[in-house]
Amino acid sequence: MFKQITIIAPGLLGGSLGLAVKKRKIARKVVVWARRIENAQAAVKRRAADRYEANLKDAVKGSDLVVLCCPVEAMPSLARQFRGSLARDAIVTDVGSVKYDVVNQVSHMIGKRAVFIGSHPMAGSDRSGLNAARAGLFEESVCLITPPSGVSRAKLHKLIKFWQAVGCRIATLSASEHDEAVARISHLPHLVSAALVSLAGKKGSELFNYAGPGFRDMTRLAGGPPEMWSEICMANHAEIRRAVDELIEELETLRRAATNKSAVEIRAYLRRARNLREELKNRA
Amino acid sequence: MFKQITIIAPGLLGGSLGLAVKKRKIARKVVVWARRIENAQAAVKRRAADRYEANLKDAVKGSDLVVLCCPVEAMPSLARQFRGSLARDAIVTDVGSVKYDVVNQVSHMIGKRAVFIGSHPMAGSDRSGLNAARAGLFEESVCLITPPSGVSRAKLHKLIKFWQAVGCRIATLSASEHDEAVARISHLPHLVSAALVSLAGKKGSELFNYAGPGFRDMTRLAGGPPEMWSEICMANHAEIRRAVDELIEELETLRRAATNKSAVEIRAYLRRARNLREELKNRA
Repeated sequence: MFKQITIIAPGLLGGSLGLAVKKRKIARKVVVWARRIENAQAAVKRRAADRYEANLKDAVKGSDLVVLCCPVEAMPSLARQFRGSLARDAIVTDVGSVKYDVVNQVSHMIGKRAVFIGSHPMAGSDRSGLNAARAGLFEESVCLITPPSGVSRAKLHKLIKFWQAVGCRIATLSASEHDEAVARISHLPHLVSAALVSLAGKKGSELFNYAGPGFRDMTRLAGGPPEMWSEICMANHAEIRRAVDELIEELETLRRAATNKSAVEIRAYLRRARNLREELKNRA
Repeated sequence: MFKQITIIAPGLLGGSLGLAVKKRKIARKVVVWARRIENAQAAVKRRAADRYEANLKDAVKGSDLVVLCCPVEAMPSLARQFRGSLARDAIVTDVGSVKYDVVNQVSHMIGKRAVFIGSHPMAGSDRSGLNAARAGLFEESVCLITPPSGVSRAKLHKLIKFWQAVGCRIATLSASEHDEAVARISHLPHLVSAALVSLAGKKGSELFNYAGPGFRDMTRLAGGPPEMWSEICMANHAEIRRAVDELIEELETLRRAATNKSAVEIRAYLRRARNLREELKNRA
């Protein structure tokens, strides 16, 4: 399917991608590059890649697909470094959780030599790093793809095939629609998860003795890496702020119904929510 | 361990309790009563009970343990009906999610003939009713017990043994501490789960196409029975209101940090949250 794929920064996602590509024979060769060379070496040792390169430019040479798996804030500067070495017609993509700013900046860096199409596989783990990587990470997850206007259909199709090959379902949307959507289905839920555990733990951890499976479900996301998530919050701060405001509105509706002791109102709210949750369940 | 246990209203919890008692041979006989006689018959058919009684008074006669598994709002009136038929020294308990008001009312009904000690096994399912009942429902869950002041140690010990026998870990606390705690680790998370799915589904269900496992975790509770939860919200409305206010405060802290683009603040918040979540994880 591909001659050579380059994975930049083989952590949880990049490492899992390498393992999936090797396992499913999606490319003849996988090359990795990491800021710290030990990480690149470790990826080869785990057979998530065939070889590593110490030099970023060498790492992208001859690849028909380059996948940026580094933090979103590092993407533009890395793209600037390797752009001159990209094969003509190479596809560059990423796995970042925020798109609008990044897509514009990286696209600008890369210019017309290659094409940048943003990707966001909605897969993860409460563990991070190469040690947590596994070939099956992407199976049954959805990958959001944000094609820029005027992108070649053939290239878009090739990228879609790639994500399908590692196990993803695909949805395409614009970069701004992406950021609006993920603020509400990923970033806000993460913050809420952190807020719930913070609130329960405010006066010490005694309440944790009483926690059932529901509380565990609701706070699982709060176990994710703070560095990555604070960065995501910065990159998507405008949409996240709007989403927080919308949630506060929802909570105030519920609070009002509790204050009025209106069982009817709360029941109606919870019924609508349950119906929506049923729709989500059937969507899988 | 018990001569005879009466289960009032064999739904998900009552039915599971009957199945667990029979399976683990905790009582010689299990009797059930339900408002609709078909439900009592169905419980016997599923072997969650040895026999049913159509008359509530007959159902409690000769039992050394009576477990109220009906909605909390129905408890006082049922207690008034059966109190005259209770065996001397019987223990009456429940499985309700709210304690303070109920404990007072039911204790008052029962008077000195028997003793009421509130129980709240933190077990459940997104399904409800006898069909969803299973003997293992209580395994590895925690049961909160709210002993009234001056309760006999022997009786409290006997009730603790009962819940341990069906698979629960035990925590004891006062009825008001209970209501404060569960507002924060159970009731608020439920409302938040409903609010998150409502918000994401506000403009139609398109966003659900992009949902990952995190969003599914965060909205699972919203699939629970609206009737039961609106009733819980009514019964514990004061604590729930306080908990909603506290959550809004937490969210405003995060919103402020996003507005100030303070990665440092958000990172610190998320770190504290992750540490708390680690504590919860190790508590299991």
